[in-house]
Amino acid sequence: MSTPEVKAARRAKFNGVFEKIRDELIEHFAAQGMPKEAIEWYRNSLEYNVPGGKLNRGMSVVDTVEILKGRELTDDEYFKSAVLGWCIELLQAYFLVADDMMDGSITRRGQPCWYKIPEVNLIAINDSFMLEGAIYHLLKTHFRSEKYYADLLDVFHDTTYQTQMGQLVDLITAPEDHVDLSKFSLERHRLIVVYKTAFYSFYLPVACALLVCHIPESYTVPAGAGKTTTVRPYELSSSILIPLGEYFQIQDDFLDYSGTPEQIGKIGTDIVDNKCSWVVNTAIRLATPAQRKVLDENYGRKDAQKEQVIKALYEELGIRKVYADYEEKVVGSLNVKIDQIVEVEGGLKKAVFQSFLGKIYKRSK
Amino acid sequence: MSTPEVKAARRAKFNGVFEKIRDELIEHFAAQGMPKEAIEWYRNSLEYNVPGGKLNRGMSVVDTVEILKGRELTDDEYFKSAVLGWCIELLQAYFLVADDMMDGSITRRGQPCWYKIPEVNLIAINDSFMLEGAIYHLLKTHFRSEKYYADLLDVFHDTTYQTQMGQLVDLITAPEDHVDLSKFSLERHRLIVVYKTAFYSFYLPVACALLVCHIPESYTVPAGAGKTTTVRPYELSSSILIPLGEYFQIQDDFLDYSGTPEQIGKIGTDIVDNKCSWVVNTAIRLATPAQRKVLDENYGRKDAQKEQVIKALYEELGIRKVYADYEEKVVGSLNVKIDQIVEVEGGLKKAVFQSFLGKIYKRSK
Repeated sequence: MSTPEVKAARRAKFNGVFEKIRDELIEHFAAQGMPKEAIEWYRNSLEYNVPGGKLNRGMSVVDTVEILKGRELTDDEYFKSAVLGWCIELLQAYFLVADDMMDGSITRRGQPCWYKIPEVNLIAINDSFMLEGAIYHLLKTHFRSEKYYADLLDVFHDTTYQTQMGQLVDLITAPEDHVDLSKFSLERHRLIVVYKTAFYSFYLPVACALLVCHIPESYTVPAGAGKTTTVRPYELSSSILIPLGEYFQIQDDFLDYSGTPEQIGKIGTDIVDNKCSWVVNTAIRLATPAQRKVLDENYGRKDAQKEQVIKALYEELGIRKVYADYEEKVVGSLNVKIDQIVEVEGGLKKAVFQSFLGKIYKRSK
Repeated sequence: MSTPEVKAARRAKFNGVFEKIRDELIEHFAAQGMPKEAIEWYRNSLEYNVPGGKLNRGMSVVDTVEILKGRELTDDEYFKSAVLGWCIELLQAYFLVADDMMDGSITRRGQPCWYKIPEVNLIAINDSFMLEGAIYHLLKTHFRSEKYYADLLDVFHDTTYQTQMGQLVDLITAPEDHVDLSKFSLERHRLIVVYKTAFYSFYLPVACALLVCHIPESYTVPAGAGKTTTVRPYELSSSILIPLGEYFQIQDDFLDYSGTPEQIGKIGTDIVDNKCSWVVNTAIRLATPAQRKVLDENYGRKDAQKEQVIKALYEELGIRKVYADYEEKVVGSLNVKIDQIVEVEGGLKKAVFQSFLGKIYKRSK
């Protein structure tokens, strides 16, 4: 466990790479002969939308590369890992700028959403496009000569498309202005969470780290009695990280309901916003017909009293206990999977996944 | 010159490939376990937004491959060329769905803009993302094993980013609701046109065709007296196609003002929409201070009388003659460039560019 000072220094170092990347993007843009106002505009969009988040996704590329190499990184290794990390943060910025417009959100990371700035408004759509466009410019600049370049592009494309699919299902399942709980289910929730969040937040950073460490598509490990077995490290990582991402989002949904504003740094609004949350889906599964009627009549309404009715029902249904049991079970099964990893030189390591799990298990914010 | 029947058959064949591509995209989407409503949604978005345009961009990939090979294509060659063509049509659909939102447009290709359909509304942002996402899924499915795969991805990325840059400059130069002609100039117009239109409409189809024909980055040709000279076919193509794309857009701008509704199939609205058109920029360059005042006071207003004032000024300034002179000059210089191409087996051919120019020169719609 690192001290707060070490953590802050790691964060500052990672943020330092953003400044380089931003300058690189702006210089390239200016070199096309773009007018001054456009250069200022793009710089503002990058600075407003890319840094300032929790940086979990981006920094986990660097963390994972360090674990895989088992030593401190050279300056070049650090920089390349951090560029990939910032590409994931750019991907997230691209999604969030657009999601906020589609959700009609007001604030993001303690400031008005980008599209809420009057001069920006719908230009935010093109700004979100350019945040994505920046990713491929950076990958080409820094990774074009690597043998894994096409694989790197593929994993960014695949993950982007998966996230868009998840966003579509979320948008048509839970429109803010039309409550229809018959569309909700725990299966639907799982699909949304895995596609909309888990692939880009958990699998993508590790896949980037594996590529930058030149970990091959498959390798063999000893399997006892002189035998060997084939490991497919990308698939194996996915088989751990996707359930882990699902767990992360379920926890997030649970904290929206159970966490105090002091804990989670915001006021939970999933109930009034008609969110397809793990909590309401669990309530739907457990509800008697009479309780289901209460859910139908009170969920997703902009009404504090109705929100309280839902919260009381959640207590009645014992959602806290259901969550606690779920958490123990999923963490147990993830630990079993992680323990089965056979470590060899130049291959996957258990600590990659233990590090993710350690940051998530029993977090309260 | 092909007969109308031959043209219609070529178009029908190209449209046939869209149906295969659409089914492939839908099957892949369904295979992820996506719910029925989401599958229907995606299918509707693809059918509404992708076919139905003029298909100039997409079909020019096939045309160019045929010219380069100098023979009819095998079924497999045709299919691969058409997939690339449809990827460009997907790219166009991605831009247009979003542009229509940012411009507040009402109709597109004779039907309401996608976002104007009430159930769609802002979900159109994510739909535009998925139209782009589809491109990379198709490229991976059909081109992953080709040696030129990374180059193909690069040219799609580069062109996408360039188009986004052009769109940004256009949006901040000519917002529909705020007229400020001091931002306009023929240089600004050229920048917008080249970045927003020429790269993806003219260079991208030819670059795709060159790649699919395995035309190398550079090759040598005889230069007389036993000497040789190096040709860079991608750069050479760009040096012809970018001015050609600029000419195409200038012609489009001119037709918006000079074409009759019967000719151009729509009523020109560039003047009332405050468009940064070649026509107004030429007027700005030619205007006396008094005429400039007329421009400032009448351009970009939703007012039919002011529109007539602008049109009268265009006549007074002799814009028709300026355009006719421009057209002769640019076509002349393009023909000179094209004639200088030295043709060798497996290299560029003059007919590629003559074909583009033939479709554009003196068109009236």
